[in-house]
Amino acid sequence: MSTDPEIQVPYDVLLELGMRSLGLVGVANPDARATMDVLLCADLRGVPTHGIQRLLTYVPRLRSGLINPLPDVRIESLAPALKIIDGDNGLGPVVATKGMAEAIEMAKSSGIGFAGCRKSNHFGACAPYVLMACRQKMIGIAGANSPPTMAPWGGLTKLIGNNPLGIGVPCEGDTPFVIDIAMSNSSRARIFNMAAKKEKIPGDWALDSEGKPTTDASEAIKGFVLPMGRHKGYGLAVAIDILSGVLTEGAFSLGLKSLAENWHEPQDIGHFFIAIDATRFMSWDVFSKRMKDLFGGLRSSRRIDPGSPIRIPGERGTQTEMDRRHNGIPIPPRFLETLKGLAEGNYDYDIPKF
Amino acid sequence: MSTDPEIQVPYDVLLELGMRSLGLVGVANPDARATMDVLLCADLRGVPTHGIQRLLTYVPRLRSGLINPLPDVRIESLAPALKIIDGDNGLGPVVATKGMAEAIEMAKSSGIGFAGCRKSNHFGACAPYVLMACRQKMIGIAGANSPPTMAPWGGLTKLIGNNPLGIGVPCEGDTPFVIDIAMSNSSRARIFNMAAKKEKIPGDWALDSEGKPTTDASEAIKGFVLPMGRHKGYGLAVAIDILSGVLTEGAFSLGLKSLAENWHEPQDIGHFFIAIDATRFMSWDVFSKRMKDLFGGLRSSRRIDPGSPIRIPGERGTQTEMDRRHNGIPIPPRFLETLKGLAEGNYDYDIPKF
Repeated sequence: MSTDPEIQVPYDVLLELGMRSLGLVGVANPDARATMDVLLCADLRGVPTHGIQRLLTYVPRLRSGLINPLPDVRIESLAPALKIIDGDNGLGPVVATKGMAEAIEMAKSSGIGFAGCRKSNHFGACAPYVLMACRQKMIGIAGANSPPTMAPWGGLTKLIGNNPLGIGVPCEGDTPFVIDIAMSNSSRARIFNMAAKKEKIPGDWALDSEGKPTTDASEAIKGFVLPMGRHKGYGLAVAIDILSGVLTEGAFSLGLKSLAENWHEPQDIGHFFIAIDATRFMSWDVFSKRMKDLFGGLRSSRRIDPGSPIRIPGERGTQTEMDRRHNGIPIPPRFLETLKGLAEGNYDYDIPKF
Repeated sequence: MSTDPEIQVPYDVLLELGMRSLGLVGVANPDARATMDVLLCADLRGVPTHGIQRLLTYVPRLRSGLINPLPDVRIESLAPALKIIDGDNGLGPVVATKGMAEAIEMAKSSGIGFAGCRKSNHFGACAPYVLMACRQKMIGIAGANSPPTMAPWGGLTKLIGNNPLGIGVPCEGDTPFVIDIAMSNSSRARIFNMAAKKEKIPGDWALDSEGKPTTDASEAIKGFVLPMGRHKGYGLAVAIDILSGVLTEGAFSLGLKSLAENWHEPQDIGHFFIAIDATRFMSWDVFSKRMKDLFGGLRSSRRIDPGSPIRIPGERGTQTEMDRRHNGIPIPPRFLETLKGLAEGNYDYDIPKF
C-alpha cells in the first residue's frame, strides 16, 4: 500500500466502486453486495488488510476463472441443526455469508446451529460473520482453514494454516464482544513487509528453515511462522482445519491453495459457522445486563499504563466503525485511483503479494 | 507430591480407593463412579495434576459442606439442541459428565447439542469429557471458567481465569485428536513450585504486581500469569467465561472462588459442552479415513529433531493410557498411603495448596 497521506472516502463511494468492479467480472448483484458488506466491515472496523484491498486479488482470480463468479451454491440439511454448504468455488464472502445465515436460521429453531462450507475461497475477516449473529442476539463463532504457513509442533514442513477463529457476543447498549484471531503470532505478510524494511522481527514469530528461532525477517521467510501460545495455537489450528475441511468433505492441510501465490488452482477453502441463541437462556435485557457487568468489571481493572483505558475485545473496532460511518474510511489516494480503475475495467496494477 | 520413586498401582485399586473415599463423605455410588472415571482418565493419560490427587481437596470440601455430596442436579431444555444444567453445587465431574451426556443426546437428534452448566465445581481436565463425545463418533468441545488468575490485557487486576478449553475428534484405528489447554502460558501452581526451588521462570509466564515482565518466580506470584498468545489467549479466556458463566446464569470473573484457597464459599464454576455428530456429514469410515490422511500428513513432516517423532495432539495421552491400563498408574508411595487413609476416613494430611 502507498505511504501517501490517506483521504477519507465515504462508505457509499467504496461500496459503489466495489459493486461495479465485481459486476464487471460477472458477479451477480446480491453476491457483489454480500462481498462488499464483508470487506467494508473490515475497513470500517480498522482492519484494512482484510478490507476492500482484497478486491485487487479477488478480481483477477475471478477474471482468470480461479474463482467462479456465478456459483451454484448448494445447501444441504444433514440434521435439524447441521447444514453443509458446497460453495462451488464462489467468492469466500458469498459462501460464508450464506453459511452464517444458515447457522442463524437453525439456531432460531434449535437454539444452536452449525454450518460447514467447502469449496470456498478466502472469506476476509471473521468479525463480519460473527457480527451477523450478534445482530440477531446470538453468539457467533466463525472459523476457516487456510493454506499452510506453520509446521506441526516439532516439525519443519509447512502443513497447517494460521487458521483464523472469530467469536462474537452481542450486548445491547455496549460494544459487542468480538475476537478475530489467527493462530500464528504474526502473519507472513507482516514479516515480508519487515524484511523489505530490513527490520528485525520478535523472537517468537518464526523459525528459520532449520527450525531455529530467528529475528532475521528474511531467514524467517525461508522458514515458517510460529503458532500463538506454542503447541496450544498449533492444536487449535489443527482443530479449525478439522472443522473447516475434514468434517465438511472439503480440502485441508496441503489441499489448500494460496490466494496470492497460486494462479493455476482454486483455493478450496473451508469454513464453519456456529450460532447460539442467547435469548433462549434468559431475556435479552438480562443477558445484556450480565455482559455489561462483565465489561464493567474488566474496565475497572487497575491499569499498567494509567493513560490507556482497558478495552473490551472488539470495542476499538466498534468505535472505529462508528467514526468511519460518519467520517469516511481512510484510503491512500493511489489505492483509490486503482479502485476507480478496477470499477472501469482497468486491470493494469500490481496484484498484492498477500 | 512426594519425590519418592513411584509404584505402579492398578487402575481398579485406585478406583476402589476413590469410590470408598467419596462414599464415606456421602457421595452416592453413581456420582462417585462418575467422579473417579473423570479423575482417573487424567491419571491414565499422564496428567496427574488433574487426577486422583484432587480427591485430597474435593473430600475436605465435601466434608465442610462447600461441595454438596447429594446434589439435586436439574436439567432444563431450552430448545431442541440447548440445555441448561443447574449443578446444585455438586462435584464438578458429576455435573460436567451430565453436561456432556446431554450434549451428546441432543447431537443424536439435532446433529449438534450445547449444554451449559452453572453452580458446579472444579471439573478436572477437559479431555475426559471430549473423549465421551469421541466414543460416540462425535466431535466434543468442553470449557469451564475458573477463579481469576489473569488481568485484562493492559490491566493489573486479576479478573479472568485461565479458563481451559478441550476439543476432541474421534478417529477409528488411530488416536483421537485431543487438545486440552488452559488460556495462560503456565499455571500459578507451576510457578509456586519453581519459587520453592528458587528457579527462574520463562519471561512470558507472568508479570509482577506492577505489570512488568519478570523471571523471578516469587515476584510473579505477587503479580499474575500471562495469557498464551498475549491478547489472543486473553480474548479466548473471556469468551470461555461468557459461554460458561454469563450465558448459563452462573458466576463469572470475580464471582468464581478458588478450589484450594477459599474455604468458606462454594466455587460456583460454570462449564459448557458441545457435541457434533461427525457421522451426519459422511460415513464413519470415510470420516476416519480423512482424519488418518490428516494425521499421516502431519506425521510425515520433516522434523527439527530427527529422533523425536511428530505427535498428533492427544496421541501421547492415548499411548500412556494404553500402557497404564495394563501396567498400572505410577503413584508416589506416600500419596498412596494418604489415599488408603482417605478411604478409611483418615483426614490427617496436608491439603494441597492448588
